[in-house]
Amino acid sequence: MDRMSEMVLYDLAGAEPERRFSPYCWRIKMALAHKGLAARTVAWRFSDKEAIAFSGQGRVPVLVDGDAHVHDSWAIAEYLEERYPDRPALFGGAAGHAVTRFVNAWADRMMVPAVARLVIVDILNHLDENDREYFRSSREKVFGRTLEEVMADRETQVPAFRQLIEPIRTTLRAQPFLAGEAPAYADYIPFGVLQWARAISPFRLLEEGDPVAQWRDRLLDAFGGLARNAPGY
Amino acid sequence: MDRMSEMVLYDLAGAEPERRFSPYCWRIKMALAHKGLAARTVAWRFSDKEAIAFSGQGRVPVLVDGDAHVHDSWAIAEYLEERYPDRPALFGGAAGHAVTRFVNAWADRMMVPAVARLVIVDILNHLDENDREYFRSSREKVFGRTLEEVMADRETQVPAFRQLIEPIRTTLRAQPFLAGEAPAYADYIPFGVLQWARAISPFRLLEEGDPVAQWRDRLLDAFGGLARNAPGY
Repeated sequence: MDRMSEMVLYDLAGAEPERRFSPYCWRIKMALAHKGLAARTVAWRFSDKEAIAFSGQGRVPVLVDGDAHVHDSWAIAEYLEERYPDRPALFGGAAGHAVTRFVNAWADRMMVPAVARLVIVDILNHLDENDREYFRSSREKVFGRTLEEVMADRETQVPAFRQLIEPIRTTLRAQPFLAGEAPAYADYIPFGVLQWARAISPFRLLEEGDPVAQWRDRLLDAFGGLARNAPGY
Repeated sequence: MDRMSEMVLYDLAGAEPERRFSPYCWRIKMALAHKGLAARTVAWRFSDKEAIAFSGQGRVPVLVDGDAHVHDSWAIAEYLEERYPDRPALFGGAAGHAVTRFVNAWADRMMVPAVARLVIVDILNHLDENDREYFRSSREKVFGRTLEEVMADRETQVPAFRQLIEPIRTTLRAQPFLAGEAPAYADYIPFGVLQWARAISPFRLLEEGDPVAQWRDRLLDAFGGLARNAPGY
């Protein structure tokens, strides 16, 4: 067995094992495809702490590559870039790497919380029975409200989300992808956030004709429709 | 006379000619210093449309480099990178260039409006007499309120600004500059926004000990204290 066939990605799943919704795991699935690397994904649920205990922590994505294992999406992207330098670049050199970290920080700190409040009950509804209690209590502690209350005004909140992603829209008016003429990790980061919502919610985040929606469409089609063909809305 | 000595930057000034406060002009002054290029700056005011009519539009920065002239800070940065490729890089290659555009879009669409509402009356108070009526009426039209009303609650608004720049803070926890180990245009973009406020307002945007304040300090010291030595608070 060659080492390629040993690559495994622990990937957050809902009650249906094929419904994969983690924004962080989506970044890595796109990154693996970008590098032309095959990984077997393993459906993982919040309650499966044992399955990834070897990684020394309790969250996915976790990538196992032969004898190596890496967790945290940013660290995995860096690992892939360093380990497979002859494959298409995720960052495009030191400057691209450094500035893409800002995109990662922006998406994590601004975009993820904004999307969470728009789809949080939809996430809950797609979780495995064993994950629901954990998910509800941990998230309600963060929000200080019931998940239903958090999501109740989403129709009035969605314009603020569309305004929040104006930096993506402005950038896309000048170039087809955040990384330039072709997509790279700077694109997969915010795309993963949209794909998270798409995997578990029928709620429309983007208006038709929005350049961000058109960019998302191009990424849904990338790599033979990897993201488009995944269970979602 | 060699062509170097002909480089001229039209630079927004207050009533005091040396008080230079445009965030966009600051980006370019830092970019010129980064490339080791000397430019004579010309104090320009909103009412001096005639002085830059040659550029075909009415805003600064405008850079004149021999027979060439360029306006718009992003276009000037691109011009400098292309025209002086052997000087230190502003973008660090195609990927750095593309992703830095996202930083530019984020700073322009998110950071500039947030800072504007915290210091808008301070700007007004530093303007040349001839610029004040234009500035007040054009900005009050945008805000739909008097400038005094816009700025009245700045003490209660400043925590939201500090939260807005969390992506910078998160990035700086991992690396000393947005561009990595050394500063580049990705840094000068948001730094210019802070320097805009510093030039015209005693209001404290950043808390002491904030990694963003420490990063700003490093950039104030860069190029022999170019930004720190400029009139400001």
